[in-house]
Amino acid sequence: MNDAKTELGRKILKLKKGKGLKWTDVAARIGQSPVWTCALCMGQMSAEPHHARGIAELFGLDEEEEATLCEIPYRGAQPLPPTDPLIYRFYELILVYGTTWKEMIHEEFGDGIMSAIDYDMQLERQPDQKGDRVRITMSGKFLPYKRY
Amino acid sequence: MNDAKTELGRKILKLKKGKGLKWTDVAARIGQSPVWTCALCMGQMSAEPHHARGIAELFGLDEEEEATLCEIPYRGAQPLPPTDPLIYRFYELILVYGTTWKEMIHEEFGDGIMSAIDYDMQLERQPDQKGDRVRITMSGKFLPYKRY
Amino acid sequence: MNDAKTELGRKILKLKKGKGLKWTDVAARIGQSPVWTCALCMGQMSAEPHHARGIAELFGLDEEEEATLCEIPYRGAQPLPPTDPLIYRFYELILVYGTTWKEMIHEEFGDGIMSAIDYDMQLERQPDQKGDRVRITMSGKFLPYKRY
Amino acid sequence: MNDAKTELGRKILKLKKGKGLKWTDVAARIGQSPVWTCALCMGQMSAEPHHARGIAELFGLDEEEEATLCEIPYRGAQPLPPTDPLIYRFYELILVYGTTWKEMIHEEFGDGIMSAIDYDMQLERQPDQKGDRVRITMSGKFLPYKRY
Amino acid sequence: MNDAKTELGRKILKLKKGKGLKWTDVAARIGQSPVWTCALCMGQMSAEPHHARGIAELFGLDEEEEATLCEIPYRGAQPLPPTDPLIYRFYELILVYGTTWKEMIHEEFGDGIMSAIDYDMQLERQPDQKGDRVRITMSGKFLPYKRY
Amino acid sequence: MNDAKTELGRKILKLKKGKGLKWTDVAARIGQSPVWTCALCMGQMSAEPHHARGIAELFGLDEEEEATLCEIPYRGAQPLPPTDPLIYRFYELILVYGTTWKEMIHEEFGDGIMSAIDYDMQLERQPDQKGDRVRITMSGKFLPYKRY
Amino acid sequence: MNDAKTELGRKILKLKKGKGLKWTDVAARIGQSPVWTCALCMGQMSAEPHHARGIAELFGLDEEEEATLCEIPYRGAQPLPPTDPLIYRFYELILVYGTTWKEMIHEEFGDGIMSAIDYDMQLERQPDQKGDRVRITMSGKFLPYKRY
Amino acid sequence: MNDAKTELGRKILKLKKGKGLKWTDVAARIGQSPVWTCALCMGQMSAEPHHARGIAELFGLDEEEEATLCEIPYRGAQPLPPTDPLIYRFYELILVYGTTWKEMIHEEFGDGIMSAIDYDMQLERQPDQKGDRVRITMSGKFLPYKRY
Amino acid sequence: MNDAKTELGRKILKLKKGKGLKWTDVAARIGQSPVWTCALCMGQMSAEPHHARGIAELFGLDEEEEATLCEIPYRGAQPLPPTDPLIYRFYELILVYGTTWKEMIHEEFGDGIMSAIDYDMQLERQPDQKGDRVRITMSGKFLPYKRY
Amino acid sequence: MNDAKTELGRKILKLKKGKGLKWTDVAARIGQSPVWTCALCMGQMSAEPHHARGIAELFGLDEEEEATLCEIPYRGAQPLPPTDPLIYRFYELILVYGTTWKEMIHEEFGDGIMSAIDYDMQLERQPDQKGDRVRITMSGKFLPYKRY
Repeated sequence: MNDAKTELGRKILKLKKGKGLKWTDVAARIGQSPVWTCALCMGQMSAEPHHARGIAELFGLDEEEEATLCEIPYRGAQPLPPTDPLIYRFYELILVYGTTWKEMIHEEFGDGIMSAIDYDMQLERQPDQKGDRVRITMSGKFLPYKRY
Repeated sequence: MNDAKTELGRKILKLKKGKGLKWTDVAARIGQSPVWTCALCMGQMSAEPHHARGIAELFGLDEEEEATLCEIPYRGAQPLPPTDPLIYRFYELILVYGTTWKEMIHEEFGDGIMSAIDYDMQLERQPDQKGDRVRITMSGKFLPYKRY
Repeated sequence: MNDAKTELGRKILKLKKGKGLKWTDVAARIGQSPVWTCALCMGQMSAEPHHARGIAELFGLDEEEEATLCEIPYRGAQPLPPTDPLIYRFYELILVYGTTWKEMIHEEFGDGIMSAIDYDMQLERQPDQKGDRVRITMSGKFLPYKRY
Repeated sequence: MNDAKTELGRKILKLKKGKGLKWTDVAARIGQSPVWTCALCMGQMSAEPHHARGIAELFGLDEEEEATLCEIPYRGAQPLPPTDPLIYRFYELILVYGTTWKEMIHEEFGDGIMSAIDYDMQLERQPDQKGDRVRITMSGKFLPYKRY
Repeated sequence: MNDAKTELGRKILKLKKGKGLKWTDVAARIGQSPVWTCALCMGQMSAEPHHARGIAELFGLDEEEEATLCEIPYRGAQPLPPTDPLIYRFYELILVYGTTWKEMIHEEFGDGIMSAIDYDMQLERQPDQKGDRVRITMSGKFLPYKRY
Repeated sequence: MNDAKTELGRKILKLKKGKGLKWTDVAARIGQSPVWTCALCMGQMSAEPHHARGIAELFGLDEEEEATLCEIPYRGAQPLPPTDPLIYRFYELILVYGTTWKEMIHEEFGDGIMSAIDYDMQLERQPDQKGDRVRITMSGKFLPYKRY
Repeated sequence: MNDAKTELGRKILKLKKGKGLKWTDVAARIGQSPVWTCALCMGQMSAEPHHARGIAELFGLDEEEEATLCEIPYRGAQPLPPTDPLIYRFYELILVYGTTWKEMIHEEFGDGIMSAIDYDMQLERQPDQKGDRVRITMSGKFLPYKRY
Repeated sequence: MNDAKTELGRKILKLKKGKGLKWTDVAARIGQSPVWTCALCMGQMSAEPHHARGIAELFGLDEEEEATLCEIPYRGAQPLPPTDPLIYRFYELILVYGTTWKEMIHEEFGDGIMSAIDYDMQLERQPDQKGDRVRITMSGKFLPYKRY
Repeated sequence: MNDAKTELGRKILKLKKGKGLKWTDVAARIGQSPVWTCALCMGQMSAEPHHARGIAELFGLDEEEEATLCEIPYRGAQPLPPTDPLIYRFYELILVYGTTWKEMIHEEFGDGIMSAIDYDMQLERQPDQKGDRVRITMSGKFLPYKRY
Repeated sequence: MNDAKTELGRKILKLKKGKGLKWTDVAARIGQSPVWTCALCMGQMSAEPHHARGIAELFGLDEEEEATLCEIPYRGAQPLPPTDPLIYRFYELILVYGTTWKEMIHEEFGDGIMSAIDYDMQLERQPDQKGDRVRITMSGKFLPYKRY
């Protein structure tokens, strides 16, 4: 049911390349972070009207495409386990660090989880002499398990 | 083939609770970070002899258990998709953000991946008035795809 | 890693039957709801010390079993799709009503989810001339997707 | 074999949005509950002719689409495990509460199941200072296992 | 969680063979049909106390085994798709006749299902010159889908 | 490779509805049972020329469609486990009664299977005060395992 | 439920090796073919009492083991797809030749199948200058699909 | 990537039926066996130019189709486990006879496998009073496991 | 999302065959190795502009196709387990040699992995009297697991 | 059925570590290559008596363990997809290079495969200033597809 959003994502990728824009440029236009803006364009987030407006103007989208940006997606089109090596490495982190996250979050916060909804993320280049690094910072609200 | 390492992990969890220790305490003893130390104890990393020494002394492990800490594990005992909600949320992040990571890392670095081997991670409590947050910082070396 | 909690659950089921107790009786003893109390005993929740105390006294559990009730479980031991017909019917509800929940919650609340963590549930007999009914009331906090 | 019903569902979603209608409006038109009406429009229920009539008039559907509403669907187009976070939370509830439902329903009713056919459901907003909640009330006839 | 019931089933199979009994003999003893009696002994049904009594006396079971017969099972230990050819043929019938059942039951009864709970079955030898046949008669209550 | 037969099935369902025919009517026309006739039209059986003739005349099919009825299908287009509740109930019967069929057929006939090829089936309404029942009678030749 | 038969198979393999016997020797003793005899010992067939007798005498089995040979197995303990290269090649034949068998058997016999129950097989060494060959001859009764 | 070969296979099946040809006729035309010829036409083998020539002439194929016959396929389009009963029976043979093949081939030839590449097969009707039989003769080169 | 790259791959295969070129010819044109060049054309690598230029000129590709060669693919379109016998053999090597690679690489290098990113490969014909051999030489940078 | 061989493998790993031996040492003792020797000890190959002799003497194995080395294994105990990162990288190579192997081997040799049976492999350290590399050389006999 996300076909329209996914297809629009592909179109935006092409337009963005053609215009030589970066995600930071797109993000600046709508006053949101680059990660969220990219996720929105990839069809995994829903925009508020003024975000959709900004993106539509930037890329010359028509009214229906603008409306598509506001639609709430059926999230999660990724095939898992991922076949793409870049995406697979995140899957591998769960295999290796799953129990570590479990033990460390419970030690610090007690019984509950890190929200993937009240959640934000940053992605940066971390310069390093032995080779630059990808730095990802995740922040999710801790949600305690309710006892009732 | 990790049975010994997994079993040792369970034993360490009990001993750690009994002694009222935190992962920062264990980590301090061996001069490594809490995340890596926890992953080591959970059976997903291999220790150098002096790490194993420190942990064995702290918990009163015997020689065979000390050697077990040094063994290189068959990594990845996590069942996927995870059934535990805390671990599942990380899986969900791949479903939602997989394409975002793909597009943003390629935009910044070109063709390649973020290493999950030359990789480190931090986990902290991020105080917040609306409810404290879990903050995870990942850093992995960018590895460019070789063209040959 | 939940073996101890699952095993304890089986023991409690036997003891409860032997003593002719109902979940409402167990729940009353610890001042929590019957559903949560049952989920705790089945090994899917973590007790606070005074809950564990009450249950240990009621069933004559030893100290280690009492501690086991307080442990945070690796949740989700259910095989899915469920082979048991009673549990399968809930799985079938997702097949049939999944899109309905999606559309109705978004219509009412916008983009976000119903929390399964800040969540509570009740289960009652609903008398009915054509045959009594099972009535389940779920309540989960709405969590809006963060835009950042 | 549900392609026609699913496709019609997508069309109705668009028309409904365009007309600014809510599921309560659609439901009122045909004298059924909003949940069932939404499930019908999403292609998971079969209408009686007068329901189909009402919906066709409301949205200006043609005769074939009206007939499509009356067709009995091959139910269950949801991919499971769900990739969408909103729908996944219901799946997670089975993982966590499956055994609880099993034990509590058998305690109250004996051997049998809660019907997912002679079944109804309500979905409401439950105002709450700490954040409004989604309230879902399910009611299914208890069906005792026949001994013969 | 059915280990006790499954194990008891194996024991009963041996005892039954040793005593040269048939399922009709066992069924006669408790006044139920052979099919249900066999399913009960295989651990898939729950007995009422007097059924358990009769079977315990017939086979010389102890008190705990008698109680086990009364327990409500976590049903469905069959691996599917079945690897055993006899059981597989029933699976094949679903592959071949699934849509036929769907169309014929809806034509006759409207929207609903055949209950697998309010259900009974018979199995007989049907003499035939070209080779005797297995005759299975199933009867399940029709349950109409509720419109609400 | 069954696309033509499946597509024809959908067409026949529509024509049959338009003409107000029942499977008994179609079956009478070709002198076969309603179940087999329905299975044939659903694309799971192969017709002899005179059956195809009768059906083509009844529904006004063209020559290619008539030939399609005679083609031997790649059987088994049902997705398993079935997502449709009506079809799922038959799957559930295997989960619950698989071992019962195994034990009872071997007790009566020795080592072998019930054929799903030399097989026939009937489906009837069984009037019942507490609600009418679906009655299915299966008959399959017993095939003894060859010892050679 | 075949544990006893599988375990016995392993024991027979050891005894057979110790005694330096070949399957032809074992087969000769009971007057059956080597293939069937081997399949019987591997726990996939059921013996008649005199076969069990012969094998028990040959290998010095006790009474319970002799009875185990007569039990009808839950067939099919092979994991599929096979991980063992020798067994995998047969799986590969289905991938490559599945449609060929389908088309050629139907051309010759019409609609139906080759029985895997009324079935026998031979396995021989076929001397060949370029390297000896394994020759397998299968023979299964053709079973025509019943039209009823 | 075999779409062209598979599609051509369907076309050849129709042309062959229209011309009333048998696989032996097609095979005779190109001087190969009927099994290999059928497998070639079904898109699972690659022809040498003169084979392709013969088949193209026989069926009136165009140049591109003739070239398609010579292409090396991505083999193995069969869904496994097979849903079609005729093909499934071969799958069942692996379940039942997998270990038998393993033990008998190793007994006769030592460690190695039967090649599925240097392999040929015949399929014949074997007349039999109790019902004709399908006879399949497979011959594959024995390949010893290299010790190096 | 690789549709364009995969489709282009198929086109290049045809053009290459038509022009009678070998991968070494294509590789020579762009100054890269044949393996990498083939992988690039199959849609699994990303070209630098001058590579794309060379290939576009060689095959007469248009501007959009040239740009497609430079795009970074969503890698990994292979279905696994592979159904094609040639590709399957590599999968089988993992089944057989997985633990050997694990033990030998750790013995030589300590804890870490062989990179599949900083990786190159050669493929040659190795003449041999008993039949020529395929010789594949892989070289991947050893990446030590970071201890932090 | 490989339990004995796998268990022996674990024992040998411990003994080898205790004695400070390398695979080259073990291999030298039996006059085979280190890769094959390691695979043998890991339970994936079958030894000839003199190999088993040499290994038994080196490690002080008893007679039964010596015999176990000679047994032909049910190969392939690796879980796939691999969860261990080192082994996974080989799996990833199939995802990325599967079609490349297919095209290049067919270009060079025609229709056929690289044998995984008449196969050998070497593994070496390849010194490199930017970080040493793992070098793996595979050699498998080309087996042409038989046309018959």
